[in-house]
Amino acid sequence: MRRWNGWGDDQYNLELPDAGRQFLDDRVGPGTPLRDVDLDTVCQSVPPSRLVPHPLVQTRAEDRVRHARGQSLPDWLAMRSGDFGVFPDGVAYPESADDVKHLLNYARSNGIQLIPYGGGTSVAGHINPLAGNKPVLTVDMGRMNRLTDLDTESQVATFGAGTPGPLVESQLRARGYTLGHFPQSFELSTIGGWVASRSSGQQSLRYGRIEQLFAGGSIETLQGTLEIPTVPASSAGPDIREMVMGSEGRIGLITEVRARVSPLPEHESFHVMFFPDWEQARNAARKLVQNRTQLSMLRLSNAVETETQLALAGHPQLIRLLESVLALKGVRGGKCMMTFGTTGSRRQCRTALGEARALGKQFGGVYTGTRLGRKWAEKRFTMPYLREALWQMGYAVDTLETATDWDNVDNLLNRIEHNLRQGLREQSERVHVFTHLSHFYPQGCSIYTTYVFRVADSYDETYARWHHLKSTTSELIVHNRGTISHQHGVGKDHAPYLPQEKGELGMMAIRSLCGSFDPEQLLNPDTLFRN
Amino acid sequence: MRRWNGWGDDQYNLELPDAGRQFLDDRVGPGTPLRDVDLDTVCQSVPPSRLVPHPLVQTRAEDRVRHARGQSLPDWLAMRSGDFGVFPDGVAYPESADDVKHLLNYARSNGIQLIPYGGGTSVAGHINPLAGNKPVLTVDMGRMNRLTDLDTESQVATFGAGTPGPLVESQLRARGYTLGHFPQSFELSTIGGWVASRSSGQQSLRYGRIEQLFAGGSIETLQGTLEIPTVPASSAGPDIREMVMGSEGRIGLITEVRARVSPLPEHESFHVMFFPDWEQARNAARKLVQNRTQLSMLRLSNAVETETQLALAGHPQLIRLLESVLALKGVRGGKCMMTFGTTGSRRQCRTALGEARALGKQFGGVYTGTRLGRKWAEKRFTMPYLREALWQMGYAVDTLETATDWDNVDNLLNRIEHNLRQGLREQSERVHVFTHLSHFYPQGCSIYTTYVFRVADSYDETYARWHHLKSTTSELIVHNRGTISHQHGVGKDHAPYLPQEKGELGMMAIRSLCGSFDPEQLLNPDTLFRN
Repeated sequence: MRRWNGWGDDQYNLELPDAGRQFLDDRVGPGTPLRDVDLDTVCQSVPPSRLVPHPLVQTRAEDRVRHARGQSLPDWLAMRSGDFGVFPDGVAYPESADDVKHLLNYARSNGIQLIPYGGGTSVAGHINPLAGNKPVLTVDMGRMNRLTDLDTESQVATFGAGTPGPLVESQLRARGYTLGHFPQSFELSTIGGWVASRSSGQQSLRYGRIEQLFAGGSIETLQGTLEIPTVPASSAGPDIREMVMGSEGRIGLITEVRARVSPLPEHESFHVMFFPDWEQARNAARKLVQNRTQLSMLRLSNAVETETQLALAGHPQLIRLLESVLALKGVRGGKCMMTFGTTGSRRQCRTALGEARALGKQFGGVYTGTRLGRKWAEKRFTMPYLREALWQMGYAVDTLETATDWDNVDNLLNRIEHNLRQGLREQSERVHVFTHLSHFYPQGCSIYTTYVFRVADSYDETYARWHHLKSTTSELIVHNRGTISHQHGVGKDHAPYLPQEKGELGMMAIRSLCGSFDPEQLLNPDTLFRN
Repeated sequence: MRRWNGWGDDQYNLELPDAGRQFLDDRVGPGTPLRDVDLDTVCQSVPPSRLVPHPLVQTRAEDRVRHARGQSLPDWLAMRSGDFGVFPDGVAYPESADDVKHLLNYARSNGIQLIPYGGGTSVAGHINPLAGNKPVLTVDMGRMNRLTDLDTESQVATFGAGTPGPLVESQLRARGYTLGHFPQSFELSTIGGWVASRSSGQQSLRYGRIEQLFAGGSIETLQGTLEIPTVPASSAGPDIREMVMGSEGRIGLITEVRARVSPLPEHESFHVMFFPDWEQARNAARKLVQNRTQLSMLRLSNAVETETQLALAGHPQLIRLLESVLALKGVRGGKCMMTFGTTGSRRQCRTALGEARALGKQFGGVYTGTRLGRKWAEKRFTMPYLREALWQMGYAVDTLETATDWDNVDNLLNRIEHNLRQGLREQSERVHVFTHLSHFYPQGCSIYTTYVFRVADSYDETYARWHHLKSTTSELIVHNRGTISHQHGVGKDHAPYLPQEKGELGMMAIRSLCGSFDPEQLLNPDTLFRN
C-alpha cells in the first residue's frame, strides 16, 4: 500500500549498505532519528470538514490526511511530526470531465477553494491546502487513468489526466508505443501533473520535455471547457498549450491529455564513462549536446556525487576493481561519472555511441561499457526510497534544482554547493552536498544538487535548518541567472522567488492570464503567486 | 533598390522560360496583365499626416507609401492599382530601445496607434494601417540590425530586433556560427518579426522553429520594459517567451532578440529522391521523421507541383533525360519529388543519408543524388521573385498554408486543392493548384499550397477572385482540423478564422494577455483579434 507519510509503496525498502552508513557518518556525523507519529493519531487530529455535502466529496479523516501534503522536506516533517497545520476539508475522486464540471460548479456556488491533485508528488507545496476562511476541496484525478485513444498514424495518445507514469507506459507498451517521459517521480506522478507543472524526464534528450510531448487536451475551468486541438505546430498567435503548461491548477483542472508518443525503440542501452576531472567531464557533456549527438539521456555526476554513489552502491569489491582499472588509465580521485543512453534504430545508436566515445576520449574519458548503465536503468526510480532509509537513520535529504546557460553553470553550481555546505556552520553541523547535471541543452543544462544533513533534536529545529538552506540557496539561484525550477515547478514554496525571475511585467501577465479564468482565485490559491 | 510595389531587389528579375509560359497557358489560359500605377502617382495621393511632430517621426509621402503594405495578394493589388485605402501617418526609424520608449510615450500621450514593422514581408496583413480616427505610426525596426553579443559557450547571440535574415547570417558566419532560420522571406524578414509571428524556416527539422531558437530578449511595452532572461529550460510557471511569440505587436515592440545559434556545420548537402506516387512518397516522409532520421530539411512536392517545377525549371533536355532514367526504374507520371538535406558532422550526415535512402527504397523511391538538391539550395530564396514575372504576364499567384496531424493530411490537402481548383468555375476560370509538405513533425506536417489564376479585367474583380478563393479555403481549413497558419501568422487577414481554432476561452486568454499590456489597444490594433 502507498505510504501515507513518505515515498512509494510501503512494501519496498531500500537498505543502505554498511559502507554507505559509514560514509555518511564520516561526512556529517552519526544521526539520531526523530520519532514518527502514526496515522491513527494524525487522523484523530483532523478537524470537522467545513464543506457542504456533495455526492462526489469524501470527508473521511484518512482521505484528508493522505491528500494534505506532497513530498517536500517540510511535507515530510509535517507527516512525521503530525504537525500538519491544515488539512483539506474533503477529497473528491472524479471519474469524468462531467464530474469535474460538477465540482467546479459546487466550488463556485459555495466559495470553496479547489486543489487539483495528481500523484501528490510535488516537492514545492503545489497541493498543500491554505489556512483561511474558505473551505478547501482536493480533487484527486487518480480515477481518470485510462488510455482512451491511440492514433498510430499521428502518434498521438489520449489519456485521462490522472494516469500515473506506470499506467501511461504499460497501456502504451501493450500497443508497441512509449511516451518516454520518466521523471524521478514516475511511479506516482501523473500525466496531468506533468503538464500542469512543466515536468521533464530522464530521457528528455530524446523525447523532449513535457512541452514537446503535450499536444493538446481538455481543461475544465470556471468559465467552461478549454479544448486545445492537436496540431503539429502553428503560428496562429500565442500558443494556448503554453498557457496551460505551468499553470499549476490556477487556470483549471486538466482532465484529458493528448500526448505525442513514439514506437518502442529498436534498441536502447545505457553506458558509463569516467572522466579525470570536472572540467573535462563538463566540457565533454557540453560538446556532446552541442554536437547534436543522438543520445537519449545524459547525466554527469560531479566528483563528490561520483564518490557518494560508488560508496552507497554496496559492491565494495567490484568498485575497488573498477577504481584500479580507472587508475591505470589515469582516472583517479576527483573522477566524474557520466551516464548516457542511446535509444533508436540500431544504426542511430551505433552512430551515437561512436560519437560519444570518440568525443569522450578527447576529454580524457574512459568508457566502461554498459554494466553500470544497466544498474542505473534498473534503479532509476528507486532513489526516492533512499530518503526513507536515511530518515530512519536520522538524516534529512533534500534536493535543489535549477538550470542555467553554459557560461554560468560552474559559477552557479559552485555557489549553490558552497552555500549549502557552509549553511549550518553556525550550528557546527556539516552538510554533505553533491551535484549532477541531468538535462542538457545546447544552451545550458540543469543543475541538480542533493544535500544531506542530520535532523536536529526537534522537528522545529530540523525545519529551521532546512528553511535556512533552502531559502538562502533559492535567493542565490534567482540572483545568479538560474531559474527557480527546471523540473519541479513553482508551487507555494518557490512562489516568493518567481518575481525575481519573471520580472514585474512577467508576473502581471501571469496574474492576468490566470485571473481571466479564475477571477475569484478559487483554484489552487497562492500557488505560482500570492493571491 | 528595394521594390516599392512588390518583392525584393528591383535589380533582380526571375525570367520564366518559354516552356513555363506554355505550361501556364495550357493550365489556365493566356494572361492579360493589368496596368501598374507608378510611385509618384501614389505619393501624390497620400493625405496629410495627422501626427503631431516628433523628432523621430518621418512623414514624407514615400516613407508612408513604402510602409503601408506587406506582401499578401491584396497588398499587391493595392500597390499595383494605387488603391491603398490607408497610409500610416508617419514612419519612425528607432536606433535604440530608448528611441522605442520615446515613441511609446509619444503614442500614449497622443492616442496614436503603433505598428511595428520588421521587413514588411507579412502575407497576412500584419502591418497594414487601419482606417479610423486615430493617427497611425509605423515603427520600422530596420536600424536596429546588429549582432551585439555572441556567447560561444552557451551559443546564444544577441541581435537588434530589426536585423534581417542576411545580416543575421553574415554577422554570425563571420564568427563561425549560424542561426539556421531560413524562411522563404529570409532576404527581407527580420529576427524580431520571426519572433512576433512564430516563423518557421526551411531547415526547421534541424534548427527548430523560432520557438526553439528564441531564448529571450527585450520587449518595450506601454507598461515598461519586459526583459526575458535566457535559461535553457524551466518549469517556473507559464513561459513568458511563449506569450511574446505570436503576439504580433499587440504586447509591445521587440527590441532585442537573444537566439540560440549553432556552429557552422562540418557538412551540408541536399538530395533529391523521386517516388512513383503520392501515397508512397507521403508515407516515406512520415516514416523518415517518425524514425527521427537526422535530416535538416525535407520537402515533398505532390505530383502537380513536381510536374510544375520541372516544367518551370527551364532545362527541358536535362529534365527529359531525368524522366527517362526515372521511367526505367518505374517512376513515371504522377511521380513526386522529395528534397532532403543532411547537415551536421560527417558521421551524422552519412548515417542520415543511409537511413533516408534505405527507407526511401522501401517505398519505391529512386535516389538521384545532389544535383537537383544543389539547384534547390541555390534558388531557395528566389521563388518570391517569380510572382513578379507571372504578374507581368497577367497571372496572380498566392499561397496558402496550414498544418495538421498525419491522419488528416491527405483529407485536408485534397479539400484545399479541390476547393481552390473549383473556386473560379462560375467565372469559367481555371486555377492551377499544387502543393508541397515542407515542415515535418512526428505528429504531422505543414501543407503549403500554391495557386495561380488569371487576373481579371479590373483590380476589383481580381481581388474578388482572390477573396473568394482565400476565404472559402480558410474556412475549410479551420473546420477540418488545420491551423489557420503554420508559418505566416495571423495578422488581420487570418484574424476572422482564429476563434474557430482557439475557441472562445482561448481567445479570451489571448485578449486578456494583450489587454494587460495594452489596455487602450494602441498597439497593432485588429491584428490577431478585432479590437
